Amino acid sequence: MSQTVTDFEVHDIRFPTSEQLDGSDAMNPDPDYSAAYVVLSTVPVDGAHGTDIEGHGFCFTIGRGNEVMAAAIEALRPYVVGRPVPRTAADLAALHRELTHDSQLRWLGPEKGVMHMAAGAVVNAAWDLAAKQAGRPVWQFLAEMTPEELVSLVDFRYLTDALTPDEALAILRAAEPGRAERVERLRAEGYPAYTTSPGWLGYTDDKLVRLAKEAVVDGFTQIKLKVGGNLGDDVRRLALAREAVGPDIRIAVDANQRWDVADAVKWMTALAPYDPHWIEEPTSPDDILGHAAVRAGQPVKVATGEHVANRVVFKQLLQAGAVDFVQIDAARVAGVNENLAILLLAAKYGVPVCPHAGGVGLCELVQHLSMFDYVAVSGSWENRVIEYVDHLHEHFADPTVIESGRYAAPSSPGFSARMLPESIAAHRYPEGPVWQARRTTEEDDR
Amino acid sequence: MSQTVTDFEVHDIRFPTSEQLDGSDAMNPDPDYSAAYVVLSTVPVDGAHGTDIEGHGFCFTIGRGNEVMAAAIEALRPYVVGRPVPRTAADLAALHRELTHDSQLRWLGPEKGVMHMAAGAVVNAAWDLAAKQAGRPVWQFLAEMTPEELVSLVDFRYLTDALTPDEALAILRAAEPGRAERVERLRAEGYPAYTTSPGWLGYTDDKLVRLAKEAVVDGFTQIKLKVGGNLGDDVRRLALAREAVGPDIRIAVDANQRWDVADAVKWMTALAPYDPHWIEEPTSPDDILGHAAVRAGQPVKVATGEHVANRVVFKQLLQAGAVDFVQIDAARVAGVNENLAILLLAAKYGVPVCPHAGGVGLCELVQHLSMFDYVAVSGSWENRVIEYVDHLHEHFADPTVIESGRYAAPSSPGFSARMLPESIAAHRYPEGPVWQARRTTEEDDR
Repeated sequence: MSQTVTDFEVHDIRFPTSEQLDGSDAMNPDPDYSAAYVVLSTVPVDGAHGTDIEGHGFCFTIGRGNEVMAAAIEALRPYVVGRPVPRTAADLAALHRELTHDSQLRWLGPEKGVMHMAAGAVVNAAWDLAAKQAGRPVWQFLAEMTPEELVSLVDFRYLTDALTPDEALAILRAAEPGRAERVERLRAEGYPAYTTSPGWLGYTDDKLVRLAKEAVVDGFTQIKLKVGGNLGDDVRRLALAREAVGPDIRIAVDANQRWDVADAVKWMTALAPYDPHWIEEPTSPDDILGHAAVRAGQPVKVATGEHVANRVVFKQLLQAGAVDFVQIDAARVAGVNENLAILLLAAKYGVPVCPHAGGVGLCELVQHLSMFDYVAVSGSWENRVIEYVDHLHEHFADPTVIESGRYAAPSSPGFSARMLPESIAAHRYPEGPVWQARRTTEEDDR
Repeated sequence: MSQTVTDFEVHDIRFPTSEQLDGSDAMNPDPDYSAAYVVLSTVPVDGAHGTDIEGHGFCFTIGRGNEVMAAAIEALRPYVVGRPVPRTAADLAALHRELTHDSQLRWLGPEKGVMHMAAGAVVNAAWDLAAKQAGRPVWQFLAEMTPEELVSLVDFRYLTDALTPDEALAILRAAEPGRAERVERLRAEGYPAYTTSPGWLGYTDDKLVRLAKEAVVDGFTQIKLKVGGNLGDDVRRLALAREAVGPDIRIAVDANQRWDVADAVKWMTALAPYDPHWIEEPTSPDDILGHAAVRAGQPVKVATGEHVANRVVFKQLLQAGAVDFVQIDAARVAGVNENLAILLLAAKYGVPVCPHAGGVGLCELVQHLSMFDYVAVSGSWENRVIEYVDHLHEHFADPTVIESGRYAAPSSPGFSARMLPESIAAHRYPEGPVWQARRTTEEDDR
């Protein structure tokens, strides 16, 4: 079988979300949710056809600079086109290593920022393709691999002072016995979710209260509010939300990196009486010691990770006892392989993983990682929730399904990453009709 | 005066250095030294002319992906074109903040990797232009600012748990009395340098010994060897170098991030008998706790910084007592402003700054920062040296001048960043004649 990847398309896709203030927070007042999107394609063999023979992946950005991400993905073309279609753990390990170890491209990070996220998009597209070839959703494709195959996927460079391959193997072997039972339970019950939809900073108090109550009616047991703009406003909003949902619903708060250490301690001390479940991104995602100081300085639990650049920073957050929750992001690090490293690190330190999602397509991707974690790594969903934001799912061919506040386990083969062709066509930047129309309106307004 | 920046040109410039194995190390076997180069231009007023009205800046890369850096610089065009020509500390502070605080572009880092380096190139180009307008080399332009102006240039976000604006002001005021005397001494004696030219991993033992001896004859009191490929080779090479230069010349070694913590400890314990001055980049530049463990686990002093993403990571390296030397790089962080933050942090913790240089144009830039540090921040050059590599200086209009192992203080206005027009034309990628000729040769070889 010599089927190869024959084409590699990159698209700059943007949604004008800043018009509604959806997604607004203390650091990001006007995001236009965007994807630098890559499609690997091949030719049909053995009767395979249509989208089964494409791999889809993307980076998430919030607008400007999405074209830089697209250029970075384009730079990876030579590693992919002409390559045999990836099918096995060995194939996926090799691709991940080549993309992250190219010495010239590595210089642009190393292992962080634009170039690293681009590698992640391509790695994830390869996983989408491989899982489709196997006829499995990615969570199941992963969960059917042996512990040895899973360990082979991980780049342990810079990790061995915290986690060795042998320790990783032991973690995975310990979780082997219950796999089948947990798969069944996952399919029957779904995976716990929480919702951020009520809490954007740009929403009015009335909208916040209404959406918080709706979330509880919809079956969510945790919601999240954005904080960090103004302390008085935050106290008022958190008090309103607590009154709206009662004492038994968890309310997480999220500062989106707004504070220095002392600000975070002061702010969270003031918010603590309203029993926030965690404070997310209190300060710079690079500030391991800062997170540890925030955790030590006030009573609320600390979460971070959506902007953590790579496994080396996650390793240290765990070594330093700086976080109570690890928030992986499906599209910031170098794809499934690096997220597997992070899941294993979190399991080693006994810290629950509660993924970041939202944006565009992030819910679709990350559900696979949490479900795999439940089945084959941590073996638990206690104290674990996947973020859910009810935006832009309509653009995906296999959108997330939320029932009673839980993510239903995907059953379609692949990574749920495929955006609908009409959505891609409409939102291409700057030439798509959505953006052409917007420019015309702006000109009319002058 | 309403003079504005009227144009913004970006060039992808590459030198085929991999042909000679210059620059080869354990992580970077075949670099093609490259610059994503930006020129800000304006129109002459008041009789100013020629290159006085241009600002030059660049990012350094090692080849592939330089086009991604160029795209990132291009994304910053709207912040620059049409802007009044920057002249004062306030102008330069405003530009730095806008480039690093744009929420949509910040998402691509945050403050790290491609997008952050692009901001650095543009900030440095603005400093080049402002210093030319003032008729001063950048080191002197900086050293003539008041402590208050210097403090205003720094973004203290995420730093205040380690360094407050008041503490920074106190450091700068304490260094004020001796400024004039140190300027004189700097002009008379130059600033101490060390040379890496003998030690590239791709060189033979004979070439290493010959170049090490030549370095001593040339007046250098410190050289550097690359290590990390093979322990036996490293022991042999370090022994040969020690024999060649004698016990009084410092020999630093550089692993270019090759090791995990345990490897670094083992390797440096084996090399310690040959009295290495420091071990540079023993492990991942993101691994603050790892550097601290390496420093605690073996007897050789630890240096790092050329790949440290930003001031937040430098802050923690200092807070954790992880480094004996801080190695700033002129073109990896967000330009002069962020390097000023790092110089102040290092001064606060009493750790000497020994900049990374080499590549293409990095010696030209960073000399200004060390000289300014000597005059107005740390007030000392004890235990401090700037790296020197004798490559590619011939492409610059105002190249570094090394005399008796010391950098002569630049006297031409600006940042010494201007590459010669004929060098730019020859090395543009892929269309420049150097690259066209190389492709023709490769075709002939087939």
